[in-house]
Parts: sequence; C-alpha cells; structure tokens
Amino acid sequence: MSSGDRLFFASDYMEGAHPRILQRLMETNMVSSVGYGLDEFSESARNRIRKACSAPEADVFFLVGGTQTNAVMIDAILRPWQGVMAAETGHISTHEAGAIEFGGHKVLTLPQMDGKVSAEDVAACIRTYWQDENHDHVVMPGMLYISQPTEYGTLYSLEELRKISGVCRENGIPMYLDGARLAYALACPENDVTLPDIAALCDAFYIGGTKCGALFGEAAVIPRHGYLPHLFTIIKQHGALLAKGRIAGIQFETLFTDDLYFRIGRNAIEAAGKIRQALEEKGYRFAFRTPTNQIFILLEKAQAAALSEKVEMGFWENTDDSHTVMRIATSWATQPEDVERLIECLERP
Amino acid sequence: MSSGDRLFFASDYMEGAHPRILQRLMETNMVSSVGYGLDEFSESARNRIRKACSAPEADVFFLVGGTQTNAVMIDAILRPWQGVMAAETGHISTHEAGAIEFGGHKVLTLPQMDGKVSAEDVAACIRTYWQDENHDHVVMPGMLYISQPTEYGTLYSLEELRKISGVCRENGIPMYLDGARLAYALACPENDVTLPDIAALCDAFYIGGTKCGALFGEAAVIPRHGYLPHLFTIIKQHGALLAKGRIAGIQFETLFTDDLYFRIGRNAIEAAGKIRQALEEKGYRFAFRTPTNQIFILLEKAQAAALSEKVEMGFWENTDDSHTVMRIATSWATQPEDVERLIECLERP
Amino acid sequence: MSSGDRLFFASDYMEGAHPRILQRLMETNMVSSVGYGLDEFSESARNRIRKACSAPEADVFFLVGGTQTNAVMIDAILRPWQGVMAAETGHISTHEAGAIEFGGHKVLTLPQMDGKVSAEDVAACIRTYWQDENHDHVVMPGMLYISQPTEYGTLYSLEELRKISGVCRENGIPMYLDGARLAYALACPENDVTLPDIAALCDAFYIGGTKCGALFGEAAVIPRHGYLPHLFTIIKQHGALLAKGRIAGIQFETLFTDDLYFRIGRNAIEAAGKIRQALEEKGYRFAFRTPTNQIFILLEKAQAAALSEKVEMGFWENTDDSHTVMRIATSWATQPEDVERLIECLERP
Amino acid sequence: MSSGDRLFFASDYMEGAHPRILQRLMETNMVSSVGYGLDEFSESARNRIRKACSAPEADVFFLVGGTQTNAVMIDAILRPWQGVMAAETGHISTHEAGAIEFGGHKVLTLPQMDGKVSAEDVAACIRTYWQDENHDHVVMPGMLYISQPTEYGTLYSLEELRKISGVCRENGIPMYLDGARLAYALACPENDVTLPDIAALCDAFYIGGTKCGALFGEAAVIPRHGYLPHLFTIIKQHGALLAKGRIAGIQFETLFTDDLYFRIGRNAIEAAGKIRQALEEKGYRFAFRTPTNQIFILLEKAQAAALSEKVEMGFWENTDDSHTVMRIATSWATQPEDVERLIECLERP
Repeated sequence: MSSGDRLFFASDYMEGAHPRILQRLMETNMVSSVGYGLDEFSESARNRIRKACSAPEADVFFLVGGTQTNAVMIDAILRPWQGVMAAETGHISTHEAGAIEFGGHKVLTLPQMDGKVSAEDVAACIRTYWQDENHDHVVMPGMLYISQPTEYGTLYSLEELRKISGVCRENGIPMYLDGARLAYALACPENDVTLPDIAALCDAFYIGGTKCGALFGEAAVIPRHGYLPHLFTIIKQHGALLAKGRIAGIQFETLFTDDLYFRIGRNAIEAAGKIRQALEEKGYRFAFRTPTNQIFILLEKAQAAALSEKVEMGFWENTDDSHTVMRIATSWATQPEDVERLIECLERP
Repeated sequence: MSSGDRLFFASDYMEGAHPRILQRLMETNMVSSVGYGLDEFSESARNRIRKACSAPEADVFFLVGGTQTNAVMIDAILRPWQGVMAAETGHISTHEAGAIEFGGHKVLTLPQMDGKVSAEDVAACIRTYWQDENHDHVVMPGMLYISQPTEYGTLYSLEELRKISGVCRENGIPMYLDGARLAYALACPENDVTLPDIAALCDAFYIGGTKCGALFGEAAVIPRHGYLPHLFTIIKQHGALLAKGRIAGIQFETLFTDDLYFRIGRNAIEAAGKIRQALEEKGYRFAFRTPTNQIFILLEKAQAAALSEKVEMGFWENTDDSHTVMRIATSWATQPEDVERLIECLERP
Repeated sequence: MSSGDRLFFASDYMEGAHPRILQRLMETNMVSSVGYGLDEFSESARNRIRKACSAPEADVFFLVGGTQTNAVMIDAILRPWQGVMAAETGHISTHEAGAIEFGGHKVLTLPQMDGKVSAEDVAACIRTYWQDENHDHVVMPGMLYISQPTEYGTLYSLEELRKISGVCRENGIPMYLDGARLAYALACPENDVTLPDIAALCDAFYIGGTKCGALFGEAAVIPRHGYLPHLFTIIKQHGALLAKGRIAGIQFETLFTDDLYFRIGRNAIEAAGKIRQALEEKGYRFAFRTPTNQIFILLEKAQAAALSEKVEMGFWENTDDSHTVMRIATSWATQPEDVERLIECLERP
Repeated sequence: MSSGDRLFFASDYMEGAHPRILQRLMETNMVSSVGYGLDEFSESARNRIRKACSAPEADVFFLVGGTQTNAVMIDAILRPWQGVMAAETGHISTHEAGAIEFGGHKVLTLPQMDGKVSAEDVAACIRTYWQDENHDHVVMPGMLYISQPTEYGTLYSLEELRKISGVCRENGIPMYLDGARLAYALACPENDVTLPDIAALCDAFYIGGTKCGALFGEAAVIPRHGYLPHLFTIIKQHGALLAKGRIAGIQFETLFTDDLYFRIGRNAIEAAGKIRQALEEKGYRFAFRTPTNQIFILLEKAQAAALSEKVEMGFWENTDDSHTVMRIATSWATQPEDVERLIECLERP
C-alpha cells in the first residue's frame, strides 16, 4: 500500500486484486467457455455463494460495480409507481449521480443515525404513505435499501436487521442490502450478522467484490429463485452484462474458495483496529465511531494538510471553515509495515 | 481455443485476455493509485490512444462493455427530442435489449446492405425529416451510429466513410462509430481506414477491448476535447464508472504498447483467411462475404448439427425450416493447430 | 367549417366541440364537485361507456390526448424488458415525437398493408423472438398496438381483429387499440366491429374524444377490472391527471347520451361519402382507398397549390418531386353547404 | 359553491370555468382553425401574456395541468447530469407521483420555512456541490423550482425573490416559478410581486389557469425567446400537446382580457379575508398563516368531523392522533352568500 515514501490509505480500491485472484485468472486464461455468465466458472461461483448463504435456490448474477448493481436491482424490483426508501446518507441518495432517478424512480429518504435507518422510521414512512388520503398522488414506498456496513462504516446488528426486515415483511416491502464492503462487516468482531442471516432477511442483496479484493465485480443474490424474472435482460438493458462473464465468475469462485473473502476482511479489520487504537492513544477526535475498515477523523485543516503530505487519505467533508473529516481505509492489501509507518506519522495533532 | 477434443470457434470472447495483459496486471498489482480512471496507468493509456489516433486533444474514457458504451455515448450526444440513426441490423437496433430506449431515445433504422448504411440513405433520412411539414411531431435524427466492422463482419471503405461523414457534417449531425471489433478491421488487408481516419471523420467512437484481447473494456474516444461535457458524471449515472479504473487503463496501455492491438487483429485475420479458403475449396456456401474475423456459413440443419458436435460455432439465424447460418469467429487466441484441426473437420458438407 | 370564403377540410379537430357538449358544460358549470375524476359526472360517463361496451366491470379513465393516452397505457402494460409491436405506419411509430421511447420502451415495427397489421405478421414477430437463441439480448414483444380506424383511415374487419386477438391471446400478449377516431369507424357502413367487440377482443383501448366532437379527451377502457393496478398514479406521474376531471367526464357523459358519439360519426361519414363520389366522378386519383372520414388524394404539386387556395387540406406526404398526397377530412362539424362548395371547387384536375 | 345544503370549500378547482370563458368558447365554437396552438386565438393569448409580463419577446406555450407543465419545463431546462432544487414541501417534491424522476431527474430538496426557500439555502446547496471534491459523483444543482404562492399559501416578497434570483444568476442557475395559483398571489394586498417582476427574475414560469378560473390550462412563459429550443417537440413527447390548442388559447385570451385573471384572484382573496377574520374572532387556531386563498386550520378530530358534515373542506394532514389540519379554499367561484353561510357554521369549536 506504499509507493515510494508515501503511504496510501485513501480507500480500499487502490490496488489490483488479491494475488489468488490474479493467479486463478492466469491458470484459466486459455480455457474456452461460453459468454454472458453461462460458463462453468460462473456456475461454480454461484454454487459456492449459494452454499455460503445457505440459500440453495438463490439466483446469482455477477455485475461490475456498486452503482450499477444498485440501479439494476432497484429497477428490477420496483414498479413504475414506486420509489425506494433509503437513509439520507445512503449511497443511492448521495453519490450515484442520479442513477436511480435515471431509471425513473424516486429515492425516498429516511432519517439516519450513524448511517443506519431504524425499523421505526421505515414503519413511519410506510404508514405515512398509506394514511395520506392523497397518497395516489405520492410515490409509494416500494422497497427498502440499506447497506452493510453503512456508508459511515457502521454495522446493523442482527437484532436491528430482524426488526427492519419484520416491518418490511409485514408491509409486503422487499428489502435490499448493498454489501459493497460486506467482507469488512463479516470479519468484524462486533458483527453478529452472517451471510445466511442476510439471505434469510433480504429479498435481494449484493456481495461486494470491487472493494473487497477483486479487480471488479459484485455478486447480486436473490434468495428466492425466480423472484425477479427476466433479470438477465434487464442487466443487458442497463449495459451491465459482461460478454466475458467468466472473468467475474472466476473472481468470485476464488473469493469463495478457502474462505478467501473472509480472510480478506480480517486483514483489513485487524489493521484498522491497530490504527484506531493508535489514534485514540494520540488523542485524535473521531468524526463518528466505526468498527469496520473505514476510520473517520476530524482534523483542523492545517493538520489535515500536514498529514496528507505523508499519507494519502480520503477527503470526506468539511464540517466548517476550519475543520475537515478525512477517511483512513484499510483493505486486503494493507501490509503490517504500512500500518506501523502510518502510526509513526500520527504524532499528536 | 480447444478444450479437450472439442474446438471452439463460437465467438471472439471465449478466453481470458492476451497474456501480455495478464502479465502487466500482475506487475502493477500492488501499486497504489487513485480510483475512477484518474490514475497514471489510465493517463498513459489515454496518451497512447491519442497518439495512435493522431488526436492529441481527444478526451478518452474507459468503459466496460459495448452496449454500455453505446448507451452512454448516445445519451451524452443526443438531446431529448433527437434519435439515433442506425442500420436496421445495427447492434443498437437489435441486440441491446432496448438499452437506447431505456435512455429515452428512439433508434431510427436505416436500410442496410451487407450491414452497412449508405451516405444516400443517411441523407434521405435527414432530408425526409426536414421536408416533413409535421416534423415537430417526429423524432429528429440527431446522430448517426455505424459500426466498423459491421455486425455482419463487413467493412466500410475510407471512401464510404468520407461520404457518410460528409453528409453528417453538412447537416450538423454527429457521427459515432462502434468499434467493438475494431482490431479485426484494422488488421484486415482489404481495409483502408486507419485510426486517424476514424478520429478525423467521427465525433465519437470506441476502440473495442472485450472482443479484441482484453478481459473487458472499451475505450471511448471523443476527438474534440470538451465536446461532451460532464461525461464523467453521465458515465457514473449509467453505472459505468469503474472504481478501479486502472484495471481498464492498464489493459489499454498494454494493448497500445508495441502494436499489440494490431497484432491481435492480424492473428485473427490470418486464421480466418485460412479457414475461409478451406471453406471455399470444400464448396461451403457463405451467408454473406466478410473480410474480417467472422465467417458466416449457410448449412443444412443436419450438417450444422453434425459439425457442431466437433466444433462449437455461433448460432446466427435460421433462414428457413431446413437451413441455418452459423458463425465461425477467430480471435487473438486462435492457435494455428486449432485452425488445422477445424479444416480437417470441414469435410465436404 | 368555412371561415369567410375559404373552406376548411384539413383535419377533424379544427373547431371547438359539438354544441351539446358546450351546452352541458354551461348547465353544470356552477355545480361543485371533487377533483381528479372522482366526481359524479365522470362516474356517470364511466357507466355509460361500460354499458356501450357491454363491459360492466371495466375500469375507465379519462385522459386528455391521444399521444398521452398511448404513452400512459403502454407504460402501464409493459414491463421493463418488453416493447410494443405496432405497424410501421402506426401513430406511436411515427408521429409521437418519441413518447414511447421517453417512457423507456422500444416500438417493434411490423409490416403494414393499408395501415393494418396482419395476424400472420404479429405471430411471426412473436415466433421470431422466441425462436432466437439469443432472445435474452432482444426486446421481448410485450403487447400489440393497433388503431381503428388506422392512420390511413382504413378499418380492420371483425374477422381480422378476431384473428389478431387470437394470436395475441395464444401468446399471452395484451392487445391495445387506439381509437382516436373511433366514432368514424363505428359509423361507417363497411364497418362490422362494435364497441362490445372491441371490449371483448382487447385488453385495453381508448375511445377518442378530441377528434370526435369533444373539446379534448380520450376515454381509456380496461375491460377487465384491476388489470392495470395503480393506473391513477401512473396517470399522475405522466402529468395526465386532470384536476377538474369532471370536464372530461361531462364531455363523455354527453357523447354517450342519446347516441351522440355515433351520430357525430355518421355526419362525417356521410359527408366524406359525397366528397369521395365527387372525386371519383371527376377522375381524381386516390393515394389509397379509405371508407372513413379521411380521404387521401394524389395531386400534382401545381394542382395541390391551386386547390389549396380555396380549400385548406392536410399535407400528408410528397411521393416524388412533382406529386403530393393531401388529406381531406370531415367531422361532426362539416356542414352540407361546405360539402357542396367543396365539390364545386373540385374541377377536373 | 353550494350544492343543496352543503357548502364546498375543499379546493379552488371544484366548479367549471369562469362564465366569461364558457361564453367565449361558445362564440368561437364554429370558427375553423389550425391545431397545436398555431391558431389565431392562441397567438392573441400569447401576445396578451407577453404584454402583461412586459416580456415582448417571450415564448409562451399552453399546457394542460400543473404536474405536466412542471415535468415538461424541468425536463427541457435540465441536462442529464443535473437535478432541480426545490423546497422539501414543493409540489414536485411531494405530490407529483414521481413525475420528475420519471423524466430522469432528481429533486434536490432544500429546507423550507412557511413553504419558502431562502436565498441562503439555495446558495448553500450550490456551494456544497461545488466544494465537494467528489461532486462528479453527485447530481449537480441545475435549476431552482419555487412556487408563488407556495404550497402553503404563502408569498415570496419581491425582496426575497430578488435575492434568490441573484444567487441563481451569479451561479448560472435557471430559476423556474410554479404559478398554479398565481392569480391569488397577484390579487393579494400583501403581495408586491408583479408579473413583470416574475418575468424579469425567472428564466421560465407558468401562469396557472386550472385553479384560477379556467376549465384547464397553464401558460408556460419563457421570457427570453429561444432559451428552450424544440420545446414544441418536448411537449409532444410528454403527451402534453393539445390537438385543439385553441381551447387553451381561447381561455387564456379571455383571462387576459379586461383584467379577468386579476379580478378572479381578487374575489377569492376578499372571500378568504372575510373567512379568516371570522375564524380569528371565533378563536380558531391556524396551522400556519397565509395571506392568499387557502386557509389552514388546526382542528380536533371531532370538530373536524362535525364541521365536515356541513362544509366540505380539504384534508391536509394529521398532526397527531387527535388533531387534523383542514384546508378552506376560496376561488373565483366563491359567492358572498356562501361565505356568509360558512361563517354561520363556524361556531366556536
């Protein structure tokens, strides 16, 4: 994660892929196979994912990136008169350049606490719609979008997810989970939500590859077979169908072999743990507390500038004219020596 | 291209990537870089493409697949009241699952001959629109889509392209070229259209990677800098922005190093030439004549079935109840021994 | 239909509304009622339409114009992966400025004869899709659009409609009929298709008001109650919901009182019959034969110009550099004396 | 406004049209004219509106309803990467069933006070976007939507509008004003914003007809000629083009003859003033204070039910389990005797 003297902790997508993935791409390179995800590698990957999710009937599709996967799945789930509920800090609410609206659907924003929505707020949004005598003039809440970990690096507990899922199911509302960084949730000691839990509680979700060790790729999982008919064509229509589908398939086959996906998460979480401890000891202020691979620190602008000379971090936001929130992210690629060097750089601000 | 005893000639996207690409991905794997195509590899690739196109000011963006690139570019070029002219056999007219219409635009189909449109038909379409007294009720032709090679494997000559481009420019109509298989056009002895010609004649085009040796990826080129403002955001909105943009950048950097893109094309064209000659000698009928890496043969259904037991070919269409058009495609991955074995299989039908 | 010396036969929407409609708007003007079509007038109109169609369970919605009604209904019927089959001369194929594509759907054009599609061509389009091994990359035919009378003023016979409907139902394809000028079909002696026939054979259709005597308005009829859920909201989303829904309701209540809708048609058909006979006697050439209120004559350009000085006709198309097709349209508003004067103008060309 | 014993104050679109409008429709009914708004009545109406707005070069189009006009204008103004800023209580944010998102654009909600946005919040929204280092991943604020009066019946002062317009112009942001109930603003004693002010400060706006005495219709005004090219076709594409455009034209010609539009407003405002005074005297609580034709009162549910037996009011919202906000609206159609009767019904709750 270092290049020359500079340290790189800006994001979890700064390097190529986990070496095992590249190795597997090499081994399989000259094997001929059919396109569009109908190949044996993709089928093997699908089976491994079904098994990991305890969802033997699941439909699994491999897409390229997170925004794309969100747009495809949301467009497939919603009917024209419906919108998608999401935290006001949700990725689809803020950083997807209007991809959901491009597909014709409104994002119905919910309040958030630490990046999470509450079962109460989901229920209130649904109830408000149905109690409104003029609701035929209003976009119907048609599904719920959540992310695990959230955009703030926080986690839903199993209890929280169960409550939210309960509200959704009582109201016939599909629940969709964005798992762009799911590996880092699964590997987190504070986490009590497993892949089978997610598959049991959600109507659709995706297991992130791009930010969890793959060159690219996200695995969309629909636990109930046939729930989203003609999804293949919808994927094609969104320009999201890979001709060489195997390239995504091989990567996910590898990620779900020998627990690689979970090991990738663990490396990042352990590195983040060490950095977090050092930050605390040195008296840094956290913008908010996160248990996963993203750490958000509040810095004076001068400090941020000084630190940025040695360490590339991610810009998050300016809180006022003199303070900035910066993100430190670890990943599968974070090396112990980089963590040590980062900690050395973190003199008391 | 063989796997066990079976021969694979169904398409040009059946294997991984040219070994040089994989090697380069390995070499660069642990270098840290920023995301979204702002990295040094992508910049290097852009510069190599600008040079190869003699278009020093060109904007270049790397996208993932052909349908996606077509949809993004067409949506970026057209205004709401406009549609895109294309051959009735054009990929956007037939095999993109409505991706252009999903973006809100009509495909205005033109007659075709061997997969190509004529300058006369382009001019007629534009003239018909403007001469129609009710044209404010009609979708305005707002751009032209062509492909080189065409979906039928045929080529526009430089003379043809100049005429078509002339009609477009007289009428203020942007011309866009789909180069999904451009390497196979450029390497073709019959071809007289160079990359600089394309850059000079088109307002936008893409250089195909997926079907020309890359794991995936297409390089969208806009010769005139700034012609399509905010294209980065439009790409994001379409779910087409790669977080690890470098993965596409590294591939195109490699393809445009040491003439690899052209060498890939040449291998396929030479292999196709040998197969074509053998087919002719053995008396096969061609559905239509093509000089590039795709060969379309007309078979009785029984013959098609028999041959398919030994050779995987691509299904093209049924011409009647007893005849089928099958496609034989070569690529960068086609080995001389596979060509020999295929020719052996081609006993007089 | 005359204004000063000039005669007006350009279209059937050149005047206001049938006097009975205006009179009824006057009578009801100060009655207070709820909005959005939930008023008593609209309910009365719906009941009269249900009765006229022998469709007691039908859902009926009043919209404003034809393009709007087509776009709303097609968007409500189709799923994202589907397109609408229509004659290449269909209004949605040609003169709706891309309204269907704006809603995200492709128009799948079918061959036409006299503006009509054949059951065979509908069947072939569906069969071609399903027999295509790559059909998951292709827009699925999801419904059929036809118009009665057609854009060419011609009529489907009951036999033809039954065959087409049969093909649709065998294939699970909804059939939708655009009745912008339905009054003129129903009043035509050659016609053997009644409103109950249409309601029995179609999944949705609309009864045109704008071109048949109303100020504006089209009545969308869905014979099977509940077939299109949340249509009210889809209408609102398309900007097609009238706040004062009663204004459309009152008009259709009047049109379906004392056979007004049919009487309006008859006036136009009788006038057109006299004009047609005169044209024949004087040796005019017809561009195509029509039994309804639109007559298409082929004129030399000089003749067209000369006649246009006295009579305003509709421009249809230029067939070559020296010939033009002009449309003569009659309506509810055509007066016997205008027909006489027009016939006087029609000296042998 | 009464029907039998019951009083109707639920909205300002419960009756037909101002009698002068109906009378004029009668007078002109049999005059023949061309369609689509190219007729002489529409041209006369456009000229009267240009004069009333002191905007001699303005483009003026007549559409049918408010949601439609908003959707058409916003789609015409925005480019694909842009969204529209609006108060979180704006009509487009809440009660248009997702019509703006259907057109592909995000509504960027701003905080509101009494239904109004502040220049500061507009500036902050724009600044936040441009200061965000990742703004290429975010929807760009591309225009501002405001309404006068607002959805809460409140008014912007000229000073407020000037400030907001100033922020917009400094930032190159078009400003669009929804004047669904503009007559009631213009006639309000507290109001200091004239039509010429609006035309000078806005890039586009509409003068509402449906809720201000017309059968239907809104006049979209673009003060700078040619600012929105091909708007006619965009209108058609949205299904918003009236075949008998004259019907809207005649209505607006009448509304802008002899100050009718302003007189209509004055009747409603005077009636509302009397009712408001009576409510105050009788101790009713207002949900919020409004100077225009809509009055929002906070009632206990039992009170609301009792009053509703005698007077039809509009349901606005439930504030808690035991309280309801009801809307009383006056209009051009409100008669003095109805106001007297309403006041009699308003015994101290």
